[in-house]
Amino acid sequence: MTALEKTGEFNLIHRFQRIIPRGTYPPIIASIGDDAAVYEPTLGLSHVITTDAFIEGHHFDFRFYTMKDVGYKAMAVNLSDIASMNARPMLATVALGIPGSVSLESLELLYEGLVEVASTYGVQIVGGDTTRAPVLTLSITVVGEASKAAIVYRNGAKLGEKICVTGVVGEAAMGLDILQHDVDPSSIGHEVFQHLTSRHLRPVPRFDFVKELNKAGVQPSSMIDISDGLSSELHHICNASQCGAVLWESYIPIPDDCATQIKSPRLPIDYGLNGGDDYELLFTASSEVLERISSDLYTEIGEVAQHDILIRRVDGTLESLKAEGHDHFR
Amino acid sequence: MTALEKTGEFNLIHRFQRIIPRGTYPPIIASIGDDAAVYEPTLGLSHVITTDAFIEGHHFDFRFYTMKDVGYKAMAVNLSDIASMNARPMLATVALGIPGSVSLESLELLYEGLVEVASTYGVQIVGGDTTRAPVLTLSITVVGEASKAAIVYRNGAKLGEKICVTGVVGEAAMGLDILQHDVDPSSIGHEVFQHLTSRHLRPVPRFDFVKELNKAGVQPSSMIDISDGLSSELHHICNASQCGAVLWESYIPIPDDCATQIKSPRLPIDYGLNGGDDYELLFTASSEVLERISSDLYTEIGEVAQHDILIRRVDGTLESLKAEGHDHFR
Repeated sequence: MTALEKTGEFNLIHRFQRIIPRGTYPPIIASIGDDAAVYEPTLGLSHVITTDAFIEGHHFDFRFYTMKDVGYKAMAVNLSDIASMNARPMLATVALGIPGSVSLESLELLYEGLVEVASTYGVQIVGGDTTRAPVLTLSITVVGEASKAAIVYRNGAKLGEKICVTGVVGEAAMGLDILQHDVDPSSIGHEVFQHLTSRHLRPVPRFDFVKELNKAGVQPSSMIDISDGLSSELHHICNASQCGAVLWESYIPIPDDCATQIKSPRLPIDYGLNGGDDYELLFTASSEVLERISSDLYTEIGEVAQHDILIRRVDGTLESLKAEGHDHFR
Repeated sequence: MTALEKTGEFNLIHRFQRIIPRGTYPPIIASIGDDAAVYEPTLGLSHVITTDAFIEGHHFDFRFYTMKDVGYKAMAVNLSDIASMNARPMLATVALGIPGSVSLESLELLYEGLVEVASTYGVQIVGGDTTRAPVLTLSITVVGEASKAAIVYRNGAKLGEKICVTGVVGEAAMGLDILQHDVDPSSIGHEVFQHLTSRHLRPVPRFDFVKELNKAGVQPSSMIDISDGLSSELHHICNASQCGAVLWESYIPIPDDCATQIKSPRLPIDYGLNGGDDYELLFTASSEVLERISSDLYTEIGEVAQHDILIRRVDGTLESLKAEGHDHFR
């Protein structure tokens, strides 16, 4: 184990540079090693930019996460914000705050996690900052691009459109409960254990869905990624679009019920509505748009309405849907 | 004092939005309130991007800094990296990690500090992230633009060119010593006290010098901002440019000697060579380039040489110049 005091800041930056592959797109004129990175915008495209912090003890816990998981997830959740704008990610900067106990070798693992995700989606890590911090702190900024007309915001949902979601919602929160309650893998089956925990530790930004949209040449009217829970994200879309919504409980793609085995008091539908960290995409679209994209990639779960945000329960009753997803301060 | 638990994350973001003025350039299509901000690159210009973290206990200390100072300096040091590329800053994102003890009102002061600097230099704060953290943690990313030909890197220094620096170097480190040693302002004079401490707390990114360069239509061959100390930054330029240097000690613009009053064992020249946080610009240029810009804005302090990095002391002796500026890990 090599202490960072022995390595020094500049050697550390050189070690990172060796791990980070040089990409070819966008044209990078200067990368790590100058005061700023320099790149060439592609003619005619708009840029999108997003920043998310990922902080030890708040977003992740070394009881469950390897260093590589930390790097992986920090990059994946940032890229997910670019996916939710229907854009293509280009480059990232990484500001790293490092406690004294962290070795050079474990930081290299962290970088391998970052690079694994970045490479998968064609993102170049072009710069950043390394400094001391009381807990491991990552702050990643990603810049992406898209044609102005293709970018999808939160505020375009229109009355009568369908509300849809990619994948299954609630599995990541269930995976976290499994880790936190120290569930024995054999009690729920190794495959289920592996699937649910990796949904929490290694979320997949849904660029496969973004590609499908681009291939079909259509856009949702609004879109958001589910980081804080379906109910909260739906409220964001409805607030921004000044509309209401009705969800059909029975249509929501939720995890299979292994809550009893994991001794959780939560029902699968509660995980699905209020569990965060799935990074699936929640979107609204007209039937005409939906006809153009593969129905394997999404599920219709409701409809845009005039005012209230409601859920029709399995028993037919109509209830107000509260935003009960994660709030970082409550 | 309003606790953040009472406010909630989304109200907090709304409060910030009220403090942040909307600018007009570059064209911002979407700002805070979506998954990412969207902007239009200006035709024909290259982009520069830089990220710096600013962490309580490491970069700043609430014994000396007000919340407004923290916001001010975090933004100023990031913009300085854009100045050192000879570029124009456009927009910034701010990732904020907030300990439980911080009130809503003090966060608004922090934002006022951020906005004060951003507005001065025409920078729009377009997005970010707020989350919990054990200590106050800011990570700011700034995107700027410039014509490809105008951008100045670290690696262009050429044999025989002059080495120059803007302003006075070492005052910020002296200011920090004054704060840390609890020096009585009357012992060094209130004006000197005020000047030196504000050099530490409120550094000024040297866009006045960048403007002068643009007005004259010339560029330095290499440039860097002095965050870690003149000696270290000169080593960066020489390493990147594969050259040496000779500094003339007697020419270096150092602070007046009040080290005895502040009971510091350091000489003014030591502050000048190895004190960080000045955010002055160190650059190399030919005599022809220097003739075109106002000599009020810079001082010639040496010459680019073949191999070694040397300093000619006041007594005429030639010594090797060590990089003794700040290293975040040593």
